[in-house]
Amino acid sequence: MEEMVRVVRWAGLQAREEADCVAREEPLEIVLDGESLAVTMRTPGDDFALTSGFLYAEGIIASRREIATMGYVGRPGDPAWQNVLHVALCAAEPERLAVRPRLQRNFLATSACGVCGKASLEAARCTAAPLTDTGFRAPVTIFSRLNAQLRAAQKAFDRTGGLHAAGLFDWEGQLLSLREDVGRHNAVDKVIGAEVMAGRMPLTERILFVSGRASFEILQKAAVARLPIVCAVSAPSSLAVRLARDLNITLIGFLRGDTMNVYAGNERLLPA
Amino acid sequence: MEEMVRVVRWAGLQAREEADCVAREEPLEIVLDGESLAVTMRTPGDDFALTSGFLYAEGIIASRREIATMGYVGRPGDPAWQNVLHVALCAAEPERLAVRPRLQRNFLATSACGVCGKASLEAARCTAAPLTDTGFRAPVTIFSRLNAQLRAAQKAFDRTGGLHAAGLFDWEGQLLSLREDVGRHNAVDKVIGAEVMAGRMPLTERILFVSGRASFEILQKAAVARLPIVCAVSAPSSLAVRLARDLNITLIGFLRGDTMNVYAGNERLLPA
Repeated sequence: MEEMVRVVRWAGLQAREEADCVAREEPLEIVLDGESLAVTMRTPGDDFALTSGFLYAEGIIASRREIATMGYVGRPGDPAWQNVLHVALCAAEPERLAVRPRLQRNFLATSACGVCGKASLEAARCTAAPLTDTGFRAPVTIFSRLNAQLRAAQKAFDRTGGLHAAGLFDWEGQLLSLREDVGRHNAVDKVIGAEVMAGRMPLTERILFVSGRASFEILQKAAVARLPIVCAVSAPSSLAVRLARDLNITLIGFLRGDTMNVYAGNERLLPA
Repeated sequence: MEEMVRVVRWAGLQAREEADCVAREEPLEIVLDGESLAVTMRTPGDDFALTSGFLYAEGIIASRREIATMGYVGRPGDPAWQNVLHVALCAAEPERLAVRPRLQRNFLATSACGVCGKASLEAARCTAAPLTDTGFRAPVTIFSRLNAQLRAAQKAFDRTGGLHAAGLFDWEGQLLSLREDVGRHNAVDKVIGAEVMAGRMPLTERILFVSGRASFEILQKAAVARLPIVCAVSAPSSLAVRLARDLNITLIGFLRGDTMNVYAGNERLLPA
């Protein structure tokens, strides 16, 4: 369920490299009777239960007896071999098979998270090019101030306890804009979308800060917007760390008080 | 961004009814050049920024100049009139229009959350019938023990700080099974799916407990599994509350220590 990564742990102006444990995140493509049905970003393990539960929740099966076979189709040894799961339904359940055309009609779209709803692993891959180093740097001392500014501006969170926030900061740690939403990916789309509407893209000199965790889709959206630094209050996933490293994005997690973990791109932080 | 609901606040064996503030959650359908592109569950407000950011992140637009018009098509006065947003792209951007066929090919599926990826508001609606009262009741005293059991069993969370959990309990508050995942909806699919595979559906005498928040898709999955009681460590959304009431599901939020808020179905709790 987890994997080890190297991390630079900052406490004030002190930094040391350590090992850290992050939750695994990998895409799972569910293929139903030969047709791609869904991709979800999940923690590997219990994929048969996950798929059974998903098919049940969607009304595709009403009991386990409607599943004829279930299995991975990848080549064992390939690290991603368990990322595609094939399900064959029993042909003897005509009333369930009748649901299929309705399913296909209903699922003709994607979601705002940018991953869910993609038809295949290929489509869910991040296609943004790695960021080139524009020389953008941020003093390490500004990060301890971001959290307090975000929290102070999160008006609706205070009243409901139920909203995520995304904030955009400049290199001095000044809050430029903040958006709240029940979905973290929506909050990110809102804060970036406001810059799109203002004609201020790309965001090569901005810092994105999200409440909660950082997963694949947050890094994907940051990459397209060319955001060099992404911070999260809580933990990143394994795939967020991998994407940040591949795309040359600085990824900071567990940003609390004057401590933080830098999972990628530590060279953008100026210890001055 | 929020709305007021009535809630029964329990502290030990004391209950009193109060007003509470929950984050608004409503579906937004994005229609691009007349074709449904995506449905997302979002907090209303900033829909133009949300949509601009989503289209940008997906590579559908590269600047605001590619958007010709954007507007709601509902009838003002209808409470849901701002849940469908139409976007027309400028015809003069052939290189962007060329992306469209790829988009449609890529988005032929849904997501495991059960909402994202649905093509229209109609498809994203919960179609489960309301639960009939089977007489299932749970002593109010058991709920204070659920949280500690869930946390004690969350092994991977302890190591990563980055995993959601879903647990299944019986009416005595005994933990029957627990699953962890980076996605809360996946954790719920896994815990319900394991029961599907064991042939133990429907779950009419079980309690579902999720870490974090309770939103639409959790209630939708609970309704299909016929789970009478859903608990969350944190806040429910407005739509989760509405769905719980419509479907006769007991919904408990902010379950911490011996305090909790009951948003729907308080009659299933026995104050003994």
